[in-house]
Amino acid sequence: MAGALVDGAGRILVRALRATPAREDAETVMGAVASVLAELTASPLWGRVDAVGIGSAGPVDTATGTVSPVNVPAWRGFPLAERVRALVGGLPVALVGDGVAMTAAEHWRGAARGYDDALCLVVSTGVGGGLVLGGRPHPGPTGNAGHIGHISVDLDGDPCPCGGRGCVERIASGPNIARRALAAGWRPGPDGDATAAGVAVAARAGDPAARAAYERAGRALAAGIAATATLLEVRIAVVGGGVAGAGDVLFGPLRQALRQYATLSFTQRLEVVPAKTGTDAGLLGAAAAARGL
Amino acid sequence: MAGALVDGAGRILVRALRATPAREDAETVMGAVASVLAELTASPLWGRVDAVGIGSAGPVDTATGTVSPVNVPAWRGFPLAERVRALVGGLPVALVGDGVAMTAAEHWRGAARGYDDALCLVVSTGVGGGLVLGGRPHPGPTGNAGHIGHISVDLDGDPCPCGGRGCVERIASGPNIARRALAAGWRPGPDGDATAAGVAVAARAGDPAARAAYERAGRALAAGIAATATLLEVRIAVVGGGVAGAGDVLFGPLRQALRQYATLSFTQRLEVVPAKTGTDAGLLGAAAAARGL
Repeated sequence: MAGALVDGAGRILVRALRATPAREDAETVMGAVASVLAELTASPLWGRVDAVGIGSAGPVDTATGTVSPVNVPAWRGFPLAERVRALVGGLPVALVGDGVAMTAAEHWRGAARGYDDALCLVVSTGVGGGLVLGGRPHPGPTGNAGHIGHISVDLDGDPCPCGGRGCVERIASGPNIARRALAAGWRPGPDGDATAAGVAVAARAGDPAARAAYERAGRALAAGIAATATLLEVRIAVVGGGVAGAGDVLFGPLRQALRQYATLSFTQRLEVVPAKTGTDAGLLGAAAAARGL
Repeated sequence: MAGALVDGAGRILVRALRATPAREDAETVMGAVASVLAELTASPLWGRVDAVGIGSAGPVDTATGTVSPVNVPAWRGFPLAERVRALVGGLPVALVGDGVAMTAAEHWRGAARGYDDALCLVVSTGVGGGLVLGGRPHPGPTGNAGHIGHISVDLDGDPCPCGGRGCVERIASGPNIARRALAAGWRPGPDGDATAAGVAVAARAGDPAARAAYERAGRALAAGIAATATLLEVRIAVVGGGVAGAGDVLFGPLRQALRQYATLSFTQRLEVVPAKTGTDAGLLGAAAAARGL
């Protein structure tokens, strides 16, 4: 987990980093948060801080200030906002989900800057996202809006661990790209990299099974992005996360498939671009949330 | 086309109705609008009117006040808002698409009343829709948000006239329900009704091909509604239009399939209910738009 002091121009002035003891009990996890905060509050710059933002893995409930990150089993309905508030001397604390945080970061300082209606995606181990509507991030009533990874684009498709079928994540996440490539006969190279990054190397070299896995992922992302644009008139989709690092291997088929699914007049100028804020997206987005998004 | 004087409580006080000369030239179509307006302005109640709302078949462009209804070929980018403004003595004129109008009506006086985040659908010859977000109808930058009929829920599915594949409308509209039932061996009864209404009669009587067509439509609508709830945390989906008249034949499979696609915690309490404003939805929704939605 990462913390930072961020100034009003989005510059990161101080950083603090701790491993997340994800499998430990609730208070041990909270202890790591407290340790990050202790390092930050010890900074001579802390006196200039006027608000604290938290971007948490989801699901979150911003209405109650609680979080239940899938990868931290001991935190279920954990009152993170209240606990952090007690550690920062009553400063205002804003909580958002990580998809909303990344979106706020890209809208503030990244590729969605200047766009009033935007979708931002993180394509990684899972597929997350967030929305900008009418000029502001739109977290929804409990901070979970923009969950594009679990919309179905293939209603008869493979079962997804979420209980649905044919979800975008079930097709386009890194592990699912690797799974599909392996099933179609791709084999890792000499470095043994069996992840989506390894598949991308093979796809760039022309391996048909590797290319097909990225084409399918691009198609699923295109259908999901087009659905979002058709529902919300978003003008840009910003794609970040490790899988986006595949570059043209992903963006090529994605943009091509988008022309097939984004057909209505008001969706035809939809742009798809890589994210700009990289691994700092969470920190910048939490800071953006602290500033009132 | 219909016009009305509507009071602040949503009561329709005066109505005017004209056939739409949909295949005629642009000025002939506008002449029918002018005739509706002439009848309304002649009413003794006209003096109490303080705003005019227009709900038009789409696509519309509320940013420019123009409309391009698919079924009126002579109107492409037609400046309807400006033309109406000239006929109503400079009263404020608000233009919205018909999906947004129906949604505004259901939010004001119908089944979405009291919901801050809602999706409304019209399932008829096509499938349209609109959104309420954060307590207000959300038309989007050009008034076209909520176009659920043309999101793909089956990325490898049948080509749709819009250019896409597997769109909700391609599966769940009335004509597509009838087409699917006929292809599966259903035949119209003694009254010769080969529409979705005829299919509903047969489905109620247990005809397997008729039931299967409604089940497929219900599944496609469920996937689209679940996608919208997953993206936007809408808490209710209100379904109107002629096909919704099939009642449990549609709503039964729709609600069952919804449990399969709306899987994330924040979507599990999603309700699906029939619309309440019926054929007056367009008039009430245009009036709601005139009141600032």
